[in-house]
Amino acid sequence: MWCSNDYLGMGQHPKVIKAMVQALKLYGAGSGGTRNIGGNTNLHVQLENELADLHNKEAALVCTSGYVANEAGLSTLPSLFPQGAIYFSDEENHASMIYGMRYSKLGKKDIRVFKHNDIKHLESLLEASNNDIEDKDKVKIIVFESVYSMSGTISPVETIKDIAKRYGALTYIDEVHAVGLYGKRGGGVTQERGIDIDIISGTLGKAFGTHGGYLAGSSLIIDCIRSYSPSFIFTTSLPPVTVAGSIASIQHVKESEKERKLLHEHSKFMKKRLQEENLPVLPSASHIVPLFIGNPNVCKEVSDVFFKEYQIYVQPINYPTVPREQELLRLSPGPLHTHDKIENFVAAAKKIWTRFSLVNYEELQERLKVRIHQ
Amino acid sequence: MWCSNDYLGMGQHPKVIKAMVQALKLYGAGSGGTRNIGGNTNLHVQLENELADLHNKEAALVCTSGYVANEAGLSTLPSLFPQGAIYFSDEENHASMIYGMRYSKLGKKDIRVFKHNDIKHLESLLEASNNDIEDKDKVKIIVFESVYSMSGTISPVETIKDIAKRYGALTYIDEVHAVGLYGKRGGGVTQERGIDIDIISGTLGKAFGTHGGYLAGSSLIIDCIRSYSPSFIFTTSLPPVTVAGSIASIQHVKESEKERKLLHEHSKFMKKRLQEENLPVLPSASHIVPLFIGNPNVCKEVSDVFFKEYQIYVQPINYPTVPREQELLRLSPGPLHTHDKIENFVAAAKKIWTRFSLVNYEELQERLKVRIHQ
Ligand SMILES: Cc1ncc(COP(=O)(O)O)c(C=O)c1O
Ligand SMILES: Cc1ncc(COP(=O)(O)O)c(C=O)c1O
Repeated sequence: MWCSNDYLGMGQHPKVIKAMVQALKLYGAGSGGTRNIGGNTNLHVQLENELADLHNKEAALVCTSGYVANEAGLSTLPSLFPQGAIYFSDEENHASMIYGMRYSKLGKKDIRVFKHNDIKHLESLLEASNNDIEDKDKVKIIVFESVYSMSGTISPVETIKDIAKRYGALTYIDEVHAVGLYGKRGGGVTQERGIDIDIISGTLGKAFGTHGGYLAGSSLIIDCIRSYSPSFIFTTSLPPVTVAGSIASIQHVKESEKERKLLHEHSKFMKKRLQEENLPVLPSASHIVPLFIGNPNVCKEVSDVFFKEYQIYVQPINYPTVPREQELLRLSPGPLHTHDKIENFVAAAKKIWTRFSLVNYEELQERLKVRIHQ
Repeated sequence: MWCSNDYLGMGQHPKVIKAMVQALKLYGAGSGGTRNIGGNTNLHVQLENELADLHNKEAALVCTSGYVANEAGLSTLPSLFPQGAIYFSDEENHASMIYGMRYSKLGKKDIRVFKHNDIKHLESLLEASNNDIEDKDKVKIIVFESVYSMSGTISPVETIKDIAKRYGALTYIDEVHAVGLYGKRGGGVTQERGIDIDIISGTLGKAFGTHGGYLAGSSLIIDCIRSYSPSFIFTTSLPPVTVAGSIASIQHVKESEKERKLLHEHSKFMKKRLQEENLPVLPSASHIVPLFIGNPNVCKEVSDVFFKEYQIYVQPINYPTVPREQELLRLSPGPLHTHDKIENFVAAAKKIWTRFSLVNYEELQERLKVRIHQ
């Protein structure tokens, strides 16, 4: 299994399972209500405290998913500023962020998109806004991710923070593919690099191995979102059983660096081995290992062959998850993917690449050069 | 505990807990991915089959909550009709439906609101639309609930269906507070009355006692929503453990009428007893027992007194969940709320009503008359 987002295998961790079985017996299957009406438990509050602590923030708010957290946060945020607001958004931001911004009270002209990880472009948009009297009083909010999950790129968090300071902008980062995996206690790329971002969104459904999502930030902002966001207010809260699993998982991941270290070691080894075998691994600064294919039908077929002939499970990533012609296999080696297993994958891939005459590593480099020069 | 939406106590049912413990040990804590990428299991497919069967529909789609199901369904539906569409929406529809419609591609003028359960008003809007050439080719979609959860009213489902037929409109019903509770197998008010509505939305977090939501309808519509809705596509799927609990719960509720019957019997008894004691129970055709207060601070205070002095837990329902001045206590007696427990509640309420000089049943009737004549 090479495409799970349960990056650290925490979904199988005995501590997590034990906490969940206990909660199941104590609280039952569901929460029975919304957070405000009958569906709040001490576990929900404890989870929010764990998350605030994980990110060194005053407060956190748990939502039913990372998708809902982004949607709730970004659709609500502008309504807290009567003077108006402007979003500056990375073009590769996740769907949940794009829809969150679109569902806010802001019009199209106050959602400005900068090229992926392109600091110069971001700065030029902020500069233009500074010179526009219509924008004078509006609050600027920079919205980006730390780890972009399909390409595996990592954003220049420090530089974005510097720019934000210079232009007096708020910052909102999606650390969904980084929490649990980066930073001394798994607090994400912002923790690893010691950068303070105003609002962090994260998920419990990937490295923490359970389900749900959250926002972390100042008490004021978190309370505002708690009080105004319909997708937080008008929905049954997460089941205590899931919440108990998340607490156990976070507590473990905060203290144990073992799983994190193994994951990064395996990821580096896999990238190296793929490249050595002339297989088209894309440049990825993160733990994610994207293997380029570039055609949706072939992508599907290759995935099927991996499964049927080699018992290797990896889903094809096609449009709309990636742009057309950038179809790929997205590999996420974890602590349990030993070197043997990686060699096994590489050997299978080599055979398949030859059989289907797929784009190899060298050819990919040529293509990437062309793309950069365009 | 008088305000849980775990209406039948299924969240504590041994069959449900057992299925969940098993799934936890077999599948782990989370699904590890989205439905399309690594987060699909046979349990998810089985749950969708159970739900399609529950509602006698070709297909069903499981979402992470009932909120997301409504949001996904109603925001996506109009994009399936290149000729355009018009929503006709009951004014008391739930926030998730209102936002779903608002987030669709339709402009304000194509979302038309009819007065709560007001058939004449709905018909006059449809008639006006028929006479408007701008609306000529647009698909009409009537959007309503079966049980309105705060007032406890039930919509005239048959009449709405008749009107829909006459005007060639599609129908979309939220049965969130009815599934599991009405109909021979718990298929909701539509099942109880034998009415075929095109799209049904439901939740797994109330009568089924677990977590998650769904849509049921024709294969064509369900597949379209599956393929186009970002809030279905770009999010971690429900944990197998929750899904396993839902399957066990639905299977039980389909076959067992015992819990349903007790719930309705207790609800009727409670309404009768409150009225006999001159306590201001609102007219409710459903299992829900709303007790009028009409002031947000008093509502909170009364709830506190119930808890501190009588160990009775019932949350105050204030704005924005109900309109201002319609603050209330929302009681949901279930199969475990025996006559003794109901008498106990009524006795406490009587004392509190006297102490706070609250509006009684007779005074409430006067107010309701005035409201109707306005
Ligand atoms: C960048 C990013 N943000 C948010 C989400 C949504 O998180 P969740 O799966 O918890 O809904 C995802 C993926 O699912 C994602 O890739
Ligand atoms: C009428 C109605 N529809 C939908 C929902 C949302 O369902 P869920 O709690 O599963 O998100 C609710 C309440 O939560 C509701 O009352």
